[in-house]
Amino acid sequence: MSDPTRPELPQEPHPQDGPRTPEESAPQPSRRALFGMLGGGAAGLAVGAAAGAVANSALASGPVGSGTAGATRGVVAFEGAHQAGIVTPAQDRLHFASFEMLHSAGRDELISLLRDWTAAARELTAGRDIGSGAVDGPPLAPPDDTGEAQGLSASNLTLTFGLGRELFADRSLRGGGTEADPFGLRERMPTSFAPLPSFAFDLLDPATTGGDLCVQACADDPQVAVHAIRNLSRIAMGRARIVWSQLGFGRTSSTSQSQETPRNLFGFKDGTANVKAEETKALAQHVWVADGPEWIRGGSYLVARKIAMTIESWDRTTLQEQERVIGRTKGEGGPLSGGGEFTEPDFARTRTSGGTAIDIAAHVRLAHPSKNHGIRLLRRGYNYVDGNNPLGQLGAGLFFISYQSDPSAFVTVQRALKTDALNEYIRHVGSGLWAVPRGVGSGEFVGQALFD
Amino acid sequence: MSDPTRPELPQEPHPQDGPRTPEESAPQPSRRALFGMLGGGAAGLAVGAAAGAVANSALASGPVGSGTAGATRGVVAFEGAHQAGIVTPAQDRLHFASFEMLHSAGRDELISLLRDWTAAARELTAGRDIGSGAVDGPPLAPPDDTGEAQGLSASNLTLTFGLGRELFADRSLRGGGTEADPFGLRERMPTSFAPLPSFAFDLLDPATTGGDLCVQACADDPQVAVHAIRNLSRIAMGRARIVWSQLGFGRTSSTSQSQETPRNLFGFKDGTANVKAEETKALAQHVWVADGPEWIRGGSYLVARKIAMTIESWDRTTLQEQERVIGRTKGEGGPLSGGGEFTEPDFARTRTSGGTAIDIAAHVRLAHPSKNHGIRLLRRGYNYVDGNNPLGQLGAGLFFISYQSDPSAFVTVQRALKTDALNEYIRHVGSGLWAVPRGVGSGEFVGQALFD
Repeated sequence: MSDPTRPELPQEPHPQDGPRTPEESAPQPSRRALFGMLGGGAAGLAVGAAAGAVANSALASGPVGSGTAGATRGVVAFEGAHQAGIVTPAQDRLHFASFEMLHSAGRDELISLLRDWTAAARELTAGRDIGSGAVDGPPLAPPDDTGEAQGLSASNLTLTFGLGRELFADRSLRGGGTEADPFGLRERMPTSFAPLPSFAFDLLDPATTGGDLCVQACADDPQVAVHAIRNLSRIAMGRARIVWSQLGFGRTSSTSQSQETPRNLFGFKDGTANVKAEETKALAQHVWVADGPEWIRGGSYLVARKIAMTIESWDRTTLQEQERVIGRTKGEGGPLSGGGEFTEPDFARTRTSGGTAIDIAAHVRLAHPSKNHGIRLLRRGYNYVDGNNPLGQLGAGLFFISYQSDPSAFVTVQRALKTDALNEYIRHVGSGLWAVPRGVGSGEFVGQALFD
Repeated sequence: MSDPTRPELPQEPHPQDGPRTPEESAPQPSRRALFGMLGGGAAGLAVGAAAGAVANSALASGPVGSGTAGATRGVVAFEGAHQAGIVTPAQDRLHFASFEMLHSAGRDELISLLRDWTAAARELTAGRDIGSGAVDGPPLAPPDDTGEAQGLSASNLTLTFGLGRELFADRSLRGGGTEADPFGLRERMPTSFAPLPSFAFDLLDPATTGGDLCVQACADDPQVAVHAIRNLSRIAMGRARIVWSQLGFGRTSSTSQSQETPRNLFGFKDGTANVKAEETKALAQHVWVADGPEWIRGGSYLVARKIAMTIESWDRTTLQEQERVIGRTKGEGGPLSGGGEFTEPDFARTRTSGGTAIDIAAHVRLAHPSKNHGIRLLRRGYNYVDGNNPLGQLGAGLFFISYQSDPSAFVTVQRALKTDALNEYIRHVGSGLWAVPRGVGSGEFVGQALFD
């Protein structure tokens, strides 16, 4: 058995430095080398995507054949006016993590953390190892990169960083009392950055709620997303620690070239009326922050809600009842007032047997912009399954993520859902709100304007 | 709010039966329709794969372009001499579930469960909905299929069923005492089907250990694997209940056309020396059961071990120490005695500084067939991440699955790992052993020969 406290072995040539055949001694293509092989194509895409990472959609949804490696090797630009991962076409997989600043960490540590995270994010999103990589560093040091993404492409990885409201507030100390404005940010808090209120039926678990910082890692390969969160978590050591994280899955790109609306675990299409990346005007109105301190202008607010589904109750419900609850057909996803998936619901339409075609408690009615002062949220949620509980019930649901220009937009819609028929089948068990700084330019770090 | 106890609504025409445009009224392609569109191509593949599901590798690893749907729409044949999902090229995602027979359920219920599961598995693995489907059944009944896989391809789904040793033994009753041979199977138990012993360093959690039945669902799309386990769990109602399940991920097919050996969460390639599907002779020797009762001949034994990795300790270890522990280089995966990934390790080779190039406690040495009477296991594990613990440590590791012709083969190798240097960085927290009946022919159900 090895002992980590034993003296380091004297440095010596690697045993495998012995004789090899030419084939064996050929260098293994590293993530770095693999990226280099992409050449101008990837660089061109990076430039094209910089304005908001929208241009990448063609790459995300279709294979880029070149022989040596696989299909979805897309690179989403990290820099831009907005952070990537918001209007970026939804990747297949999610690893979302919430971090807490250590009590010993102050403003300097927060700045250095954001700086180090940004440097790492530039590498990771380009499909490169961090620092000296997984195998190219000194043998007597722990590798800079944990290595499980070696040989994998960037897989359209995006890393989106958010700041919790706690960073702008006083800090409670363990021994009692408070530390005033530990990060010196109080003056920089946007007035719209109000905490989420308690909602009807909230059953929030503190273990999956809140956090000083969040990182949303999305990629087409779960191992790439997990690798990113793991390495960012490592980099945070001594400054912040991960408090909770969530894996999720959505579409599988290789089966969705038609970009069909994906289904949630209730079996219904989810996201039909979402704000689309191409709706520049709607994005400016509903997603991007236009005023307030400079660091948040061009940014957004991220709301995450872990919504557990009582799958077993739902599965025992009739098709008619399921469709009444949602207000759409289960097959095509058209509104019950008639038409196809993208037909606007007609909430006034009545049935011959009386009542409205779309129930007064149907989810689609209560969540609709026409019932919410025109509010639209950009939703970017993922299905999750955390295994089973001891009763044999699936620990499954929707990890809801929405982006909006003002947290109050989410609050308005969520309050409107108080009478949602869907509430019988869901439980909100986790929650978080973070301010997402605007995107970074060359040489900048995420949130830099916050400290200027 | 809806009330599941309220009287059913009178049946009436679906509201969307109102006027539609021709385009809107075009039927939505169902999973069934989609499969039909595959036509002879898929059927041909099914036949080709029936002999052992090996022929499917080309399909699994490369896109089959046809325009209307996505890339990996492969169908792995359910019928064959052996169950699929053993030598089938490893799909990207896993949902593994363990079930417990209800105390009220006896031999008839076990037979009917296996019969119903087999019928459902035939549909699911072909990319079809179960029964009358998700939307084609009567509106006043719960749909037969939960619907979240609608529009998704079969995604190379395989469903592999195993039987726990408890099914052949007496049953402990809650009120005390035992029920003798509740399923009438005692006489059919193979002599080699001995329980796994306790191993050194075992820290098994009863919540993720054992079970009367297991189902291994593998697919290239996690939603397809989850959909299968969910629907099989639903079908089990009143007869068996799910007691634990595990999601996992491995390669992402779209990035692995070269079938590079995937990496585990230690960042090392895992599976280099695995038994390959093409090694017919090795399979006959190491994987397929050749003797014993008829139901198990052509079957195998499945061992599952949930192996938690202490990721944070590992990540603080030097590259040299990591390579010493594994006995291979982290980059290419070649043995430390020299050569490339597929070079045989030379355990006798010494270093100029003394000692063997491959440490005496290296994992590769202790697990090697040459140190284990030539034993080889067919490994088919998946990486997992279950989020984080409250200390901020990643709840991650390897969900190890191996198939062998005799459980004692696993026991031998696992015992040899008692002095494995890797033990410092891993914890076995879950375990299970199941007998996997031979494959099914036309009209048969899984394990049918057990009841003849």
